Amino acid sequence: MTAEVDPDGHATSPRGFLAGATYAGVKTYGEGKLDVGVLASGLPCTVAATYTKNVLHSASVDINRARLAAGPARAVVVNAGVANSSTGQRGIEDGLRMTALTGQKLGIAPEEVLVCSTGVIGHYLPMDKLERGIAAVEMSPSGGEPFSRAIMTTDTRAKRGSVRFGPYTLGGCCKGSGMIHPDMATMLAFLTTDAPVDQPFLQQALSEAVDRSFNLVSVDGDTSPSDTVLLFANGAAGGETISEGSPLADGFRGALGALCVYLAKEIARDGEGATKLVEFRVTGGATTAEARALVRLLSTSYLLKSAIHGADPNWGRIAAVIGRSGLTVHEPGVTIGICGVRVFERERPTEFDPARLSEAMKGDTIVIEADLGAGGGEATGWGCDLSAEYVSINADYHT
Amino acid sequence: MTAEVDPDGHATSPRGFLAGATYAGVKTYGEGKLDVGVLASGLPCTVAATYTKNVLHSASVDINRARLAAGPARAVVVNAGVANSSTGQRGIEDGLRMTALTGQKLGIAPEEVLVCSTGVIGHYLPMDKLERGIAAVEMSPSGGEPFSRAIMTTDTRAKRGSVRFGPYTLGGCCKGSGMIHPDMATMLAFLTTDAPVDQPFLQQALSEAVDRSFNLVSVDGDTSPSDTVLLFANGAAGGETISEGSPLADGFRGALGALCVYLAKEIARDGEGATKLVEFRVTGGATTAEARALVRLLSTSYLLKSAIHGADPNWGRIAAVIGRSGLTVHEPGVTIGICGVRVFERERPTEFDPARLSEAMKGDTIVIEADLGAGGGEATGWGCDLSAEYVSINADYHT
Repeated sequence: MTAEVDPDGHATSPRGFLAGATYAGVKTYGEGKLDVGVLASGLPCTVAATYTKNVLHSASVDINRARLAAGPARAVVVNAGVANSSTGQRGIEDGLRMTALTGQKLGIAPEEVLVCSTGVIGHYLPMDKLERGIAAVEMSPSGGEPFSRAIMTTDTRAKRGSVRFGPYTLGGCCKGSGMIHPDMATMLAFLTTDAPVDQPFLQQALSEAVDRSFNLVSVDGDTSPSDTVLLFANGAAGGETISEGSPLADGFRGALGALCVYLAKEIARDGEGATKLVEFRVTGGATTAEARALVRLLSTSYLLKSAIHGADPNWGRIAAVIGRSGLTVHEPGVTIGICGVRVFERERPTEFDPARLSEAMKGDTIVIEADLGAGGGEATGWGCDLSAEYVSINADYHT
Repeated sequence: MTAEVDPDGHATSPRGFLAGATYAGVKTYGEGKLDVGVLASGLPCTVAATYTKNVLHSASVDINRARLAAGPARAVVVNAGVANSSTGQRGIEDGLRMTALTGQKLGIAPEEVLVCSTGVIGHYLPMDKLERGIAAVEMSPSGGEPFSRAIMTTDTRAKRGSVRFGPYTLGGCCKGSGMIHPDMATMLAFLTTDAPVDQPFLQQALSEAVDRSFNLVSVDGDTSPSDTVLLFANGAAGGETISEGSPLADGFRGALGALCVYLAKEIARDGEGATKLVEFRVTGGATTAEARALVRLLSTSYLLKSAIHGADPNWGRIAAVIGRSGLTVHEPGVTIGICGVRVFERERPTEFDPARLSEAMKGDTIVIEADLGAGGGEATGWGCDLSAEYVSINADYHT
């Protein structure tokens, strides 16, 4: 995964994709104020997708699942401001109407259009505004940039990038000011490539990449009803179809992994109220799943996140999370490190200099290491600190 | 559980108990500054205890477990400021030394003395200060009051009470500015009664009461390495020994339940940075365990706690927690209520007045109701809102 990500790339960097965005008046906050976007391929695509596991999910998740089970798609329409979740049958009808309007605009079947909505739960979509908005979107080969802004909610900046592998480009954008914020920062990602990729391999590669990137980011541990990652491959750059075992299969996996990790870290760094990116490196798990579980627990601890915000090398809070984790722990082998300094090993504190370590923790990227002493399971994930600003954002916003 | 709790009661309200406290210099913060306390019965006691499930627990938990397995105890010595956790063999030796000093002072065997420590993890106890402090404690029948202050860390006030049942009194105190805060607000409770109670029934009644009170309170979801609840019964008020099936067994259970729920709610209300007590009433769980699980998830959601702080009737955050819970959910039966107002039912929002509901949420006690629609499982638990103050307390405190 050493492929280099171009931070100026976006979802229309790969050949054959067009996108555009406009302000329809759905979103009443946020930078730039774009709130409706359309992304489409001129050519048919293979598509892979991953969705939230939240059972009370939004209408769009049901629509996209059904569409992709029936056949391929080549476009997606997105709105920010209203999540169209917990809205019953009317929500489904509104989502379908968005795809029909977009299909009409692009001259393709509604069945080839997917839909995502992000914003407040439990509100109905303002369909009159969306109808005018979708009609007003101007599609262009540079539209990936405004598209990346139209999907933002509490995000403070667009998160996008592209990466090259062989003769191909992979690009995309995501939004989310937390792993998942149920009403204001649902995580969405839209990825595109001009490589020809067969669908089973595309889905497998996406699932793996998401598991090692977006699924290991947490801002607050809450999971939204709308989380969706879509990957469109249109083959516009020609060549042999890539499948499992193809010469370019590993290159594609590496590129996709690099882009997903880059975007996932961008989400953590832009977590609501965040001032620092935190990387959690867990080793010594009885299994990989146990190592991943500890990453999730560490990255959602109020106390640890608060300590990191205050540049406080309070490793006891890490020990407490390990102890309450329910995971396999071999006490004599447990070690804890902060910013490269070993602070606990062999069941007792080391002689480290707290003032010096606190100084190191004032940087904008903090590395937390924990070894469970129990086996060879490893995982790395990302999160952010917890600031008073987080509380303000989430307490002062009114439904 | 309609027994009435006297908020002025304490651990020496029952007959035959003495207590005292002093300032030894272990704690460098907090109101009143008492930091060492001793509680003892003149008569032998039966004792029941519950402990943290954190596997990296403090030395005191190991010592108390071993002591109570070997025989009964009649006293406990407590210090605040240093938790004596993650301190290895030296921690065990320091804890044993505290019980030896206390036994010597009281003229009883060290084996009859238990020990609890609360405060920062990973620091060694200042044994010279503690030796002088334990010697300086003056024991008296009104000492339950200063004792309740000596166990405080970030608590803003002492939490204590007593309750009468038949001819007996049950009293006690607890500390904790969160369900469990690994380094500054470990939850401890010390309960006493002058009723004669046999040990198996005492333990069973305590485990049940703790399960319905302290185990359903959460401030931040973190569990400390030192959590301990001790209940001493010395029989000083005479009468027949109470056991399962005794005429007073239900009265004792009711009194113990009422005192534990009272103290648990006191902890939630005094949660770090809290401005409101939140009561979570979950119904419709497939099982009681599933209903309890949802109480825990709701009471630890950053987003819901922030919304409550801002008096925002953002019920989508409750729906999102239900959806991500992994519990059995029967969607058509799911209902959500806030402060007595039904906001979601039959898979869609109700027509409620958000401004009016927000006004109701400005009170100091908020009731959140959620029905999973899946069965007859019920649970009620307590928590608090998340304020910027919480972050300040936990970020600005340095180890």
